[in-house]
Amino acid sequence: MATPTITEHDTTAPAAFGPAAALSCRECGERFPLGPVFACEICFGPLEVAYELPTGDPEALRRRIEAGPANIWRYAPLLPVPADVASKPNLNPGWTKLVKADNLARELGVTGGLHIKDDSGNPTHSFKDRVVAIALEAARTFGYTTLSCSSTGNLAGAVGAAAARAGLRSCVFIPHDLEAGKVVMAAVYGGELVGIEGTYDDVNRFCSELIGDPLGEGWGFVNVNLRPYYGEGSKTLAYEICEQLGWKLPDQIVVPIASGSQLTKIDKGLKELIALGLVEDKPYKIFGAQATGCSPVSAAYKAGHDVVRPVKPDTIAKSLAIGNPADGPYVLDIARRTGGAVEDVSDAEVVDAIKLLARTEGIFAETAGGVTVGVLRKLLSEGKLDPAAETVVLNTGDGLKTLDAVAPTTGLSATIRPNLDSFREAGLA
Amino acid sequence: MATPTITEHDTTAPAAFGPAAALSCRECGERFPLGPVFACEICFGPLEVAYELPTGDPEALRRRIEAGPANIWRYAPLLPVPADVASKPNLNPGWTKLVKADNLARELGVTGGLHIKDDSGNPTHSFKDRVVAIALEAARTFGYTTLSCSSTGNLAGAVGAAAARAGLRSCVFIPHDLEAGKVVMAAVYGGELVGIEGTYDDVNRFCSELIGDPLGEGWGFVNVNLRPYYGEGSKTLAYEICEQLGWKLPDQIVVPIASGSQLTKIDKGLKELIALGLVEDKPYKIFGAQATGCSPVSAAYKAGHDVVRPVKPDTIAKSLAIGNPADGPYVLDIARRTGGAVEDVSDAEVVDAIKLLARTEGIFAETAGGVTVGVLRKLLSEGKLDPAAETVVLNTGDGLKTLDAVAPTTGLSATIRPNLDSFREAGLA
Ligand SMILES: [Zn+2]
Ligand SMILES: [Zn+2]
Repeated sequence: MATPTITEHDTTAPAAFGPAAALSCRECGERFPLGPVFACEICFGPLEVAYELPTGDPEALRRRIEAGPANIWRYAPLLPVPADVASKPNLNPGWTKLVKADNLARELGVTGGLHIKDDSGNPTHSFKDRVVAIALEAARTFGYTTLSCSSTGNLAGAVGAAAARAGLRSCVFIPHDLEAGKVVMAAVYGGELVGIEGTYDDVNRFCSELIGDPLGEGWGFVNVNLRPYYGEGSKTLAYEICEQLGWKLPDQIVVPIASGSQLTKIDKGLKELIALGLVEDKPYKIFGAQATGCSPVSAAYKAGHDVVRPVKPDTIAKSLAIGNPADGPYVLDIARRTGGAVEDVSDAEVVDAIKLLARTEGIFAETAGGVTVGVLRKLLSEGKLDPAAETVVLNTGDGLKTLDAVAPTTGLSATIRPNLDSFREAGLA
Repeated sequence: MATPTITEHDTTAPAAFGPAAALSCRECGERFPLGPVFACEICFGPLEVAYELPTGDPEALRRRIEAGPANIWRYAPLLPVPADVASKPNLNPGWTKLVKADNLARELGVTGGLHIKDDSGNPTHSFKDRVVAIALEAARTFGYTTLSCSSTGNLAGAVGAAAARAGLRSCVFIPHDLEAGKVVMAAVYGGELVGIEGTYDDVNRFCSELIGDPLGEGWGFVNVNLRPYYGEGSKTLAYEICEQLGWKLPDQIVVPIASGSQLTKIDKGLKELIALGLVEDKPYKIFGAQATGCSPVSAAYKAGHDVVRPVKPDTIAKSLAIGNPADGPYVLDIARRTGGAVEDVSDAEVVDAIKLLARTEGIFAETAGGVTVGVLRKLLSEGKLDPAAETVVLNTGDGLKTLDAVAPTTGLSATIRPNLDSFREAGLA
């Protein structure tokens, strides 16, 4: 494993990437200069951002963060972005509500404090705005003029909106047969939206081909060649949760698993806060949540395996429907190391959980939020999650994006004629 | 006109309503104790909240506000709510983004600074969360156990969500033939949702009947018997805009008109900030925006009338489709007094404006936001709005709620096979 040197640091434009020092291979540890690369030259492992984080008085850093803007840029000193990032046009995502969910806690028997981190409050109403904002900044630094991605929905909207605001061109690739509503949400920002005759896997393969071709020159694919930067955006969920708890680690966190990246970055963010002295060190448990119709990580966890066997997704939780999750093995490691677990719930349980959260807290979650709340309930009933410990559950998107999931079982209580007799007969008064 | 006395003030539970002193008739000025009433006993005019606002050092008040929570409760000292309102379960709306819209300004030739007040960031993604939060607090004070309203969409969701979070029952009345998506959004929070065979006017008439009947005992209708409190929530838009501009009045504001209440309360809020010394006094102009398919106030403005002649609405901007706007005459008065105007745009212009805002700033607005941005553009082209003056435009809701408006003209740029040749042929690289 190469040791980073000051020289290596200096040649990688430290100002443009703030405290980031290098890219480092998750598998072999080899380090590379900060560039638009995503796989290790030696072992083809995934690259991630390595930092030289600020040392010194934690109190001063805490005050600096607290004086910052009410969005992810308050954590600029801990992200691979320049210090002036907040002054450039972007959607300023983050600093979403951490909702104390006392009604839900009562219903589920949680006594140690239950909180929903509600990322539906982001500009395009999913956590993707966080990761795209970091990727956008990297794209600017690398001189890319087109922002791109493969997507089945949430990411397409986040990329289209961020590019529009930043004055970049966008070109987003989706399976050609997506639902009409998702196409509108992705296309309204005026970028190019290309439907590909094939599955999401075909879309992904095509994007990898395009990156290697002269046709794709000047293109930043947020979830491919900008992926190391993109992924770091999820750390801000960990930062915000701890700051909103009063600079304190939660005891337990329930996180959805799609590629698994978000869960690993939340763990990374928590560890950084401990290392920086911003929170007191103590054990925390991270729980992963999947829909049974796409639960390769949960299956591996339960079988005691270290590797994840790919599946063909079949679930209403489409934003989590990645059958071959790249970060699956890392997720297994984190769940086991922290004393958490990985669990899955059926589509019917997802719908029930969406309604439970809406009915108790007035939060209408995307199917991914139904997965985490459903898994919370299941873990409690199995005795795997401590009801007396402080618990945070992520809702990563908005129910307006997945109306179809609840539509068949959600409707009018009654239809009446416009008079009191008719209302009396309905028995609702 | 009766003069308020200390006694009158004392008997109306001042603690429960903070700085509110009485209800006062907009027509004859008669004052009444703070109660669940909405029409003047003398002249049947609408009642509104009158205040004894804090006197003394504006700097101290400003610091108190700035130290408050990042939601409307930072302005609790200026609202008809108890000082401890933030500690009670509610959705904590407000403190939405004021977005500097430099790209849109460039496109429209605005040089004095253009800002979008983006209320799609509220918990249920419309400004209705603001007004419902105040009505909810009044409902608690009056001991109501059911929260209710008549609605065609946004309000239904806001009431359902707020009641769920507060642990109150909700019962919302809508026309029975609303779009399926809106029914889901209103029903998912688990309250009663009653479809009424008839038009929105029939729904309204039925609600008024229900309030007068024993069947409706213990029911707080946010937009009927709680309307004086409900309306005050819109003042927070004025407060936030000025605070976010650095405690400064804008020169020009473009506000949508449905009933007209929001526009009148924004004017009220701005005048309060001046009276309190929180902003420097200077002229400001308020512009009202309607869709041509429901433009009774715009028509009256252009004809030089003081009264508004009701119309039958026919526009895609359904959240503004009130054919007989209760506050129309007050709106005319404010537009004329401040040197503003009222203007309207066609449905095609609304769609164009939604796309323009999305393309330039990455903000996907509801049709009501298309109306205000469309009217901004029209007023500029007519020379009625000064491009060199600082201007704020309201977006009161989220594009996800009115996907149908843009769906017919928003879609894929191309459909290709998953290979580079097919992409090359599409001519998008
Ligand atoms: Zn390697
Ligand atoms: Zn009167």
